[in-house]
Amino acid sequence: MNIAFDMMGGDYAPEEVVKGIRDYLAHQPSPAFVSLIGDIHILEPLVAQYALPAKAFKIIPSTQVIGMHEHPLKALKEKKHSSIAIGFHLLATGKVDAFISAGNTGAMLVGSLYTIKPIEGIQRPTIATIVPRENGKTGLLLDVGANADCKAEHLNQFAVLGSLYAKHILGIENPRVGLINIGEEEGKGNVLAQATYPLLKANPQINFVGNIEGRDIFMDSADVMVCEGFTGNIILKLAESLHEVIERQKIKNEYFDRFNFEDYGGTPVLGVNKPVIIGHGISHSKAYLNMLLLTQKMIETRLLEKMSESFRNV
Amino acid sequence: MNIAFDMMGGDYAPEEVVKGIRDYLAHQPSPAFVSLIGDIHILEPLVAQYALPAKAFKIIPSTQVIGMHEHPLKALKEKKHSSIAIGFHLLATGKVDAFISAGNTGAMLVGSLYTIKPIEGIQRPTIATIVPRENGKTGLLLDVGANADCKAEHLNQFAVLGSLYAKHILGIENPRVGLINIGEEEGKGNVLAQATYPLLKANPQINFVGNIEGRDIFMDSADVMVCEGFTGNIILKLAESLHEVIERQKIKNEYFDRFNFEDYGGTPVLGVNKPVIIGHGISHSKAYLNMLLLTQKMIETRLLEKMSESFRNV
Repeated sequence: MNIAFDMMGGDYAPEEVVKGIRDYLAHQPSPAFVSLIGDIHILEPLVAQYALPAKAFKIIPSTQVIGMHEHPLKALKEKKHSSIAIGFHLLATGKVDAFISAGNTGAMLVGSLYTIKPIEGIQRPTIATIVPRENGKTGLLLDVGANADCKAEHLNQFAVLGSLYAKHILGIENPRVGLINIGEEEGKGNVLAQATYPLLKANPQINFVGNIEGRDIFMDSADVMVCEGFTGNIILKLAESLHEVIERQKIKNEYFDRFNFEDYGGTPVLGVNKPVIIGHGISHSKAYLNMLLLTQKMIETRLLEKMSESFRNV
Repeated sequence: MNIAFDMMGGDYAPEEVVKGIRDYLAHQPSPAFVSLIGDIHILEPLVAQYALPAKAFKIIPSTQVIGMHEHPLKALKEKKHSSIAIGFHLLATGKVDAFISAGNTGAMLVGSLYTIKPIEGIQRPTIATIVPRENGKTGLLLDVGANADCKAEHLNQFAVLGSLYAKHILGIENPRVGLINIGEEEGKGNVLAQATYPLLKANPQINFVGNIEGRDIFMDSADVMVCEGFTGNIILKLAESLHEVIERQKIKNEYFDRFNFEDYGGTPVLGVNKPVIIGHGISHSKAYLNMLLLTQKMIETRLLEKMSESFRNV
């Protein structure tokens, strides 16, 4: 198993990435081989400083970086020697088994869609986030921003992708799917939600439990919560900001501690042919460590093959 | 000034409504006259028990109640003797100056739209909620559920209505308007947000400060936050649930105390010709007291006349 890491992606890269990889190699009993893509002049002293074991990794030199605010499609086309472009090339050509970056999110999505490509039958790949619940469980929310405008069938596919992720990665048997909506009864909501409800209800691949509302998001009402990427992204960013509010208010609380995104690593791009993980720009070593653990689990559970099978059978 | 109150609306009505009115009459130096619409057999002993001063109120008997789960339009048509139908009739015919209810929200919206009617020039009346900020200020979020699907021009009108409310009711001079979106730069977002941005930017009646994201909602990034009613309602319900989470987690914190909706009373229907206030179904006396204070302020500041003037000048 060979996981490629964009060493130049994120506000605290590459040092925090190196630290995250060090922790992964030290604590994981059978770690993957890690391909470090980045500026060799910066990386060589860092891997020495943090004493990464020589057999566990290889540096793959890149000479360009895609900035956080560059136009994704343009940057990927023009910067062939950037760490992100090289990562996607390695993944597409089978040289590595997965690619992780906390760099330009748009470029990561564009690379996933155009270089790795959607699984056959999937119209819109999606990104998801973990939502902690008071009872200790975790929920999955998707889409959280890859698809700002959606059709009902897209949400129906998100429900299947989210259910498979919840089952195989989060270990939830027969995950309950809820449609995020403004009202509990069938027929409520905006045009999209009204059109989506009957599709989810009729979908034999999921365990649909009906509409859920804003107040259900932190409750244990559904394991997989489905919405378009506009609403999902607003919820995601609001939930992330809560963790900061709680810290600023000097509140010590176990539940709100679990709102720290670093505990969950990054968000996988669900619905493309190979494992791609996008990290948060402000990731530290803990987040990078968790991105690696998540990626390894995605490979070990053969999650993408299961997604592919699901959509072959439809 | 004569404010009509639906005494049968809300889970703890009519007793908590009577208590709220008692507190209002006791503490407000120049209170409005209150018209109590409800079951006279229940109300008479209650107003005696709580010793409402005889000169301050009048009971207007109603013999029907619209339940929380009844179909709004059907119920309003069929139940002419319900407290909500009578309230709208009194308001439309000028017998009272405002109408408050914590009953069926849908019926309150339908009555506002069809009996009281939108202010000329306003396409979609809206409902708003207060969002507390860490720095002690308050923001205004709208629409929070009256309009699940919107066009750009609707959001542009919400921005004007919200700005007038923020100025006259919340006392914010030159309120900053933010467009809720998934990205900071112009051009980001879903189709609706992309279409709305240039309208807000070109609107001379508002102080537009650009896009705001999910993480800005609890921050002091904008005074008036504009979105369609689907996203707004999800945010509202999520924020309300936070107050419950904080209570369950036994966290004592001044900032999160301010998430108690009872402090703000109810939500006014903005953009109709007369003051209509909708309360939360689980309101207690404090919320009813605050609904009365808010209504009196809306009348005293001539808020609706100012809204009407704004749309005459466009």
